Amino acid sequence: MTTLEKAEKLIKHKKIAVIGSCDENVPYVKAVLVEKKDGIKTFWFGSNTPSLRAQQYMKNPNASIYFFNRVLYKGVMLSGKMEVLTDAESKKALWKPSFKHIYAGVDDPEYCVLKFTAESGKYYFNLHKEDFAL
Amino acid sequence: MTTLEKAEKLIKHKKIAVIGSCDENVPYVKAVLVEKKDGIKTFWFGSNTPSLRAQQYMKNPNASIYFFNRVLYKGVMLSGKMEVLTDAESKKALWKPSFKHIYAGVDDPEYCVLKFTAESGKYYFNLHKEDFAL
Repeated sequence: MTTLEKAEKLIKHKKIAVIGSCDENVPYVKAVLVEKKDGIKTFWFGSNTPSLRAQQYMKNPNASIYFFNRVLYKGVMLSGKMEVLTDAESKKALWKPSFKHIYAGVDDPEYCVLKFTAESGKYYFNLHKEDFAL
Repeated sequence: MTTLEKAEKLIKHKKIAVIGSCDENVPYVKAVLVEKKDGIKTFWFGSNTPSLRAQQYMKNPNASIYFFNRVLYKGVMLSGKMEVLTDAESKKALWKPSFKHIYAGVDDPEYCVLKFTAESGKYYFNLHKEDFAL
């Protein structure tokens, strides 16, 4: 199995990602629900436009997203860029009924979409690390 | 219960932390074992001196460490500074027999200690966030 395949296998059924951002050279980390994904390259998250993370990614799109299996000491970190999408089409495409508990509706300016595109990855297993390209 | 008490309760029995670092304004995220902690303020991790994280924290000590409960949608992010300790006393204090599988011994220059000191925190519960000082 290639490193990429091992990373894909670990991520495949994960519903939660830990996302990293940098604000003035200070790191921030948070767990978020993965709303949609396309393989191991593109991931979408629902977010709140005025939130700290959305504001940080607007200033600095550098991002990492991380998945791990705490039992097996395996982890995958993907590095890339996070876009903050506020256009009607992107918002509609990710909208789900339960968002009504959070936002006034799909047009609510406070609702936005975070789209992460991976450029490279690191696969961790015990104390080993393998880099891979995307 | 105060926000600090809620954060303490969430962290109390956690054995794994997700640590964040910034390298040239690019965020990095990784899960690590908590080897020792003093309340919610100070945490120690074993590390490898040539490793990416140790090198990053030597250049930029800004750090965050994150704990979360994926079932209850609760999380705590602590912000502060990460020190990379290579002195004999710190290394000896954290040493445990199983490290022999990783390092030649307590004096191995590749073995080092990461010491995190929190300055402030954020407690997340569902979509709410509460800041607290330390």
